[in-house]
Amino acid sequence: DAPGTWANVVPPNPRTLAADAAAADAAAEVASVRSPTATQVAALSSLARRKRIFLGGVNDFLPIIRRSHRLVLVGCGTSYNACLATRPAFEELCGTPVSLELASDIADRACPIMRDDTCIFVSQSGETKDTLDALDYAAARGALTVGITNTVGSAISMRTQCGVHINAGAEIGVASTKAYTSQIVTLVMLALALSEDSLTKLTRRIEVIDALAALPENISKALELAPEMEKLAKKLTEQQSLLVLGRGYHYATAMETALKVKEVTLMHSEGVLSGEIKHGPLALVDENLPIIVVATRDRNYAKNLSCVEQLCARHGWLMVLAGEGDTELERFAKENKGGTPMHLIKVPETVDCLQGVVNIVPMQLLSYYLACIRGLNVDQPRNLAKSVTVQ
Amino acid sequence: DAPGTWANVVPPNPRTLAADAAAADAAAEVASVRSPTATQVAALSSLARRKRIFLGGVNDFLPIIRRSHRLVLVGCGTSYNACLATRPAFEELCGTPVSLELASDIADRACPIMRDDTCIFVSQSGETKDTLDALDYAAARGALTVGITNTVGSAISMRTQCGVHINAGAEIGVASTKAYTSQIVTLVMLALALSEDSLTKLTRRIEVIDALAALPENISKALELAPEMEKLAKKLTEQQSLLVLGRGYHYATAMETALKVKEVTLMHSEGVLSGEIKHGPLALVDENLPIIVVATRDRNYAKNLSCVEQLCARHGWLMVLAGEGDTELERFAKENKGGTPMHLIKVPETVDCLQGVVNIVPMQLLSYYLACIRGLNVDQPRNLAKSVTVQ
Repeated sequence: DAPGTWANVVPPNPRTLAADAAAADAAAEVASVRSPTATQVAALSSLARRKRIFLGGVNDFLPIIRRSHRLVLVGCGTSYNACLATRPAFEELCGTPVSLELASDIADRACPIMRDDTCIFVSQSGETKDTLDALDYAAARGALTVGITNTVGSAISMRTQCGVHINAGAEIGVASTKAYTSQIVTLVMLALALSEDSLTKLTRRIEVIDALAALPENISKALELAPEMEKLAKKLTEQQSLLVLGRGYHYATAMETALKVKEVTLMHSEGVLSGEIKHGPLALVDENLPIIVVATRDRNYAKNLSCVEQLCARHGWLMVLAGEGDTELERFAKENKGGTPMHLIKVPETVDCLQGVVNIVPMQLLSYYLACIRGLNVDQPRNLAKSVTVQ
Repeated sequence: DAPGTWANVVPPNPRTLAADAAAADAAAEVASVRSPTATQVAALSSLARRKRIFLGGVNDFLPIIRRSHRLVLVGCGTSYNACLATRPAFEELCGTPVSLELASDIADRACPIMRDDTCIFVSQSGETKDTLDALDYAAARGALTVGITNTVGSAISMRTQCGVHINAGAEIGVASTKAYTSQIVTLVMLALALSEDSLTKLTRRIEVIDALAALPENISKALELAPEMEKLAKKLTEQQSLLVLGRGYHYATAMETALKVKEVTLMHSEGVLSGEIKHGPLALVDENLPIIVVATRDRNYAKNLSCVEQLCARHGWLMVLAGEGDTELERFAKENKGGTPMHLIKVPETVDCLQGVVNIVPMQLLSYYLACIRGLNVDQPRNLAKSVTVQ
């Protein structure tokens, strides 16, 4: 395909109530974000039947991308967090080293980009200035450039060699919600497509594809947490600070939750890699600081439990995101005597590399209700613009 | 050399008053951290005469490291920030892609490490469990392993193939200060040594080597900021939150300042890449939130000015770290009418890749005085241990 004409496939678009709610005062928006659902559910069902990913906009480039020495995922803000969320999937499915770059940092550092790198540029609007500058920088150095945007005909879709449109529908709220989940789904699909040639990854691919097909149902279930999140938001509304901890796939969930809370509630929230707390942030922990820990079950579950235990020992005020079948953490929450009682947020469970799509839903809801209770405009946070087209 | 017997060269050790002050209640410590000075100043002078770096512990491995496809810098907490601070120097002087890894994240993600990678493990104690696990992980995958530690005979110095001791002297305070600056100096020296074979980099190398020789003097000058930092600490003592912004070489300065403030003052401080503020954190900015911007002059100076301008437009309460000869920012501070008056912290100027060593000094002093005013034990922050030898 010529640049800008990536074949227009329809990746699944698990959008969230938070996005809808955020747009509640714009009737046209609500209509527009709801309309693609049928198409996308159809796309997911056909995916589940075929057990194969087909992404028209990158298909011809897959053999070249597979031979890259390195994948470089590039974005700003929420788009960067979508890269962070899917990096482990690329690493596992492609076996290639994956670097993450905040777009503005590429020019600031003048970092080496090689001709055998594949650089993937993620931007909802496709017009983010920092990301475009990074794209020009990488293209000038001969790297293969791939775009992931929500906007057909945008600068990024015109200037990259290939790419995928996330088809999330128009997103009007400044703080990205449905674009984040759609970016994750699209990036995981790209990782799956890149591993199509590997026989050893076949079982794993089918596991992830089946989970993709079941994702809309899991999202719907997660949306039922809305009343619980509203109650939790009421408890948190007077707080000035919030820590959000996660590791592995959920370092991104922690970072994106913190960013969302920051943007729409103006509370100082910070995402921290769970493994780093002993190296500094643990000093902040006492019974007055609310802390969210993402501890859904995956290969890092034992470490998550130990993190929760350490925080309990310091009488931390904990809210723990746990898988709905997790009796271990439930027992733990009941036995926890010291400090503020632990609050468990039970989310539906899916495959590890897609769990982030489900986990972010209650967190987006929490930010939404916090903003509402604080009387803030959730669509238009203070000082921010939807697409940042200046440096 | 056999593992654990890296030739024991003496890199310069610009230690800071904050470290000394932190150890003030331990007379033995003060004596021990002061004693290496003479040796180290001698080492620096000889460096300035010879215009060449010689690091006995890695010398035989330099040709192999130069042929790596990728350098991977690995650390936790402050040691990670030292990696972040020197990544641009490695990228510039070696021209090789450089990845940064928080040590615990390597195992969490099971990230691909290749046989043609060189992995550099940075740890003050040389016993950090997460870093050791990452070292074993990389060694099992055939990567070349390099250690940067402060402890001869430590596990990391025993298990890596080559390395450099930073010779910072015993560091007793839990929050690292002199180890950070010594790690930066050592890593920059390693980057210089790796570029020794390049003729085009000769002028640049001499520039950096001369700056290394002048570093002790610049540090001494920066230490004279102590009374000013004490005054500033008094103004900040009631605050609950602090943002620290930096870009390029000073993303690390921002992160390390935030970590230090977090550890010893228990204030919720967060380091943010300046280029990212428009993508979220700008929402937090108003006249009530103190913000430190690192804006010393380097190739990103114009972007720093524009960042300061944007924050002024939102009436941010700004403290700006500026080069002592910077009349532009001085004029700017005077003209700034809206919001809280801008506070300029003027630091001595050195070459870009070593400016971080100077810039962190007033920030360490600020943390120190904040902790003292708040009546906290600066040597032993709440909940933390000096070397984290568990996962």
